[in-house]
Amino acid sequence: MTVGTFRLPNFELDCGAVLPEASLVYATYGELNRDRSNAILYPTSYGAQHSTIDWLIGGDRILDPDRWFIVIVNQFGNGLSSSPSNDPACGLAEQGFWFSHWDSVCAQQALLSQVLGIEQLALIHGWSMGAQQAYHWAIAFPDRVQRIAALCGTAKTTEHNRLFLESLRAALIADPTWDGQRFQATPDRGYKAFARIYASWAASQAFYRAGIYRQQGYSSLEDYLERGWEANYRQRDPHDLLAMIDTWLRCDVSDRPAFGGDLAKALGSITAQTLVMPSTTDLYFTPEDCEAEAQLIPKAHYCPIPSIWGHRAGNPSQNPQDESFIRQAVQALLNAEA
Amino acid sequence: MTVGTFRLPNFELDCGAVLPEASLVYATYGELNRDRSNAILYPTSYGAQHSTIDWLIGGDRILDPDRWFIVIVNQFGNGLSSSPSNDPACGLAEQGFWFSHWDSVCAQQALLSQVLGIEQLALIHGWSMGAQQAYHWAIAFPDRVQRIAALCGTAKTTEHNRLFLESLRAALIADPTWDGQRFQATPDRGYKAFARIYASWAASQAFYRAGIYRQQGYSSLEDYLERGWEANYRQRDPHDLLAMIDTWLRCDVSDRPAFGGDLAKALGSITAQTLVMPSTTDLYFTPEDCEAEAQLIPKAHYCPIPSIWGHRAGNPSQNPQDESFIRQAVQALLNAEA
Repeated sequence: MTVGTFRLPNFELDCGAVLPEASLVYATYGELNRDRSNAILYPTSYGAQHSTIDWLIGGDRILDPDRWFIVIVNQFGNGLSSSPSNDPACGLAEQGFWFSHWDSVCAQQALLSQVLGIEQLALIHGWSMGAQQAYHWAIAFPDRVQRIAALCGTAKTTEHNRLFLESLRAALIADPTWDGQRFQATPDRGYKAFARIYASWAASQAFYRAGIYRQQGYSSLEDYLERGWEANYRQRDPHDLLAMIDTWLRCDVSDRPAFGGDLAKALGSITAQTLVMPSTTDLYFTPEDCEAEAQLIPKAHYCPIPSIWGHRAGNPSQNPQDESFIRQAVQALLNAEA
Repeated sequence: MTVGTFRLPNFELDCGAVLPEASLVYATYGELNRDRSNAILYPTSYGAQHSTIDWLIGGDRILDPDRWFIVIVNQFGNGLSSSPSNDPACGLAEQGFWFSHWDSVCAQQALLSQVLGIEQLALIHGWSMGAQQAYHWAIAFPDRVQRIAALCGTAKTTEHNRLFLESLRAALIADPTWDGQRFQATPDRGYKAFARIYASWAASQAFYRAGIYRQQGYSSLEDYLERGWEANYRQRDPHDLLAMIDTWLRCDVSDRPAFGGDLAKALGSITAQTLVMPSTTDLYFTPEDCEAEAQLIPKAHYCPIPSIWGHRAGNPSQNPQDESFIRQAVQALLNAEA
């Protein structure tokens, strides 16, 4: 693995703000072949950084670095690339500041083209917010994207999904340390509520009914919530957690002048081979919503993951059965004519 | 309608606390017939008071007061009967204090027997926490309950349901006004987060997808959340909201010595004709959980409400289609041999 940082001077964002120097931290795995035809982009999901999602890269995993040159780019707001926690020029919705996925994919395209010499991607593999970025990529740069695998994500955030996000945001900033603009200290109460809301939505009712977390070594529901969820979010700056929600809330591939809010027109413009892969038990990126979008995408293959792991089925780091299902579907996509 | 208050001196609770004077506020509708055979108990649901749920009583509604004598008893903690907001002897889990449903049904039975002269109920009609009370009644007093209609509720709170409740509780007490034991002022931030969590779970994804709230006259999702949800919870004392969660969290009909935690044994002891009626889209009292309990109840009829209204399908005050479905099922239950 090689890690690098790409800097973009005077980078103008959708929200109108201009970052004097935007930065993208990225990691690459494997080797780019001579004709530069084996590049795969793997964008990060909510709260994730490249080191937390590269378990998926390996000879026997979903993305094989012996065959593919895989690039993970950390999305804006995740604490490595430009984020409220590392750049004073970044803010939150409270200050009229947000990153859009268009901002991310434009910066990512510049990185691939200017630094890595990649003009076309064989695949974009994205889960959750990564799937959102894959859809934005396929619409912003149709000639540069041969295939996308969109796992457990939609091209436009639905109203119910927005409500889930609004509940997370309201719970985190309910904390006493929130002054209306920033956190003045660690929001212990906010983290606790945030983690419990997230845990209730990101796994399914069936996941808890089956008691899977007990098989994973957690002694109780409370133990699972604290060690399995809250501890992870506490590793992220709370402003960054809000910033990524602000991006997710505004996710809409149709919000460009060319589409004028017409989602069918936006999705209809996708030329990439598109694997639409929700989880059958995902509670916020529901299979119904993903299937409705798939019907608007010309070369879409709708292939839900049969799983009780809910949203997390698409990130099966502890779940060999779902990983095997995804690996086979992604292999078939990679073997398909672009 | 007649409203009364029933007082119980030195009332000992499951949690070990003794209330010097517990009080139950109740409302009656219709007339008790000579042989006292037309009594229906209608317990209150989470956050509800008799005046907010008696829309269901009417000649053309689900419960007909011309034929039935209907008693709504306000559950402990709801702000009318003994609650943290009206009785200094009441507390919260933080002080080792909680009401159990056993406490409620024992007090309710004393009210019916000692004040109203009712020795047997033709029906207990309960939605959500009302269904929980109906199950406790049927198990605590099998000879006194001929039928129960348990809408959108389980006899034991599942782990996923507990997680939803823990997220609500954590969000409300994340508020700066919470001192660890009590709220020192109105928890504006807590109410906001609480309402958004509740709104995300109590309606279904399909409900939001269909934009039903817009048809109801709300101009936006935010308008719906503020006027349709947050305003209602703000009518309740925040301590009472926590107290009712503390009861819900501990709901388990098998937690008596006679059953020793054996849910099958507890549900197997029910002799009442039991209508188990979840909503097909309920996200926390799922149809799967309700059906599993129905299979353990001797005289159960499992009859899910086909609806996109989620948990609220069982309280169809704005939903004539689901009301008609429920009315027909309850009519059939009332006409069935006890």
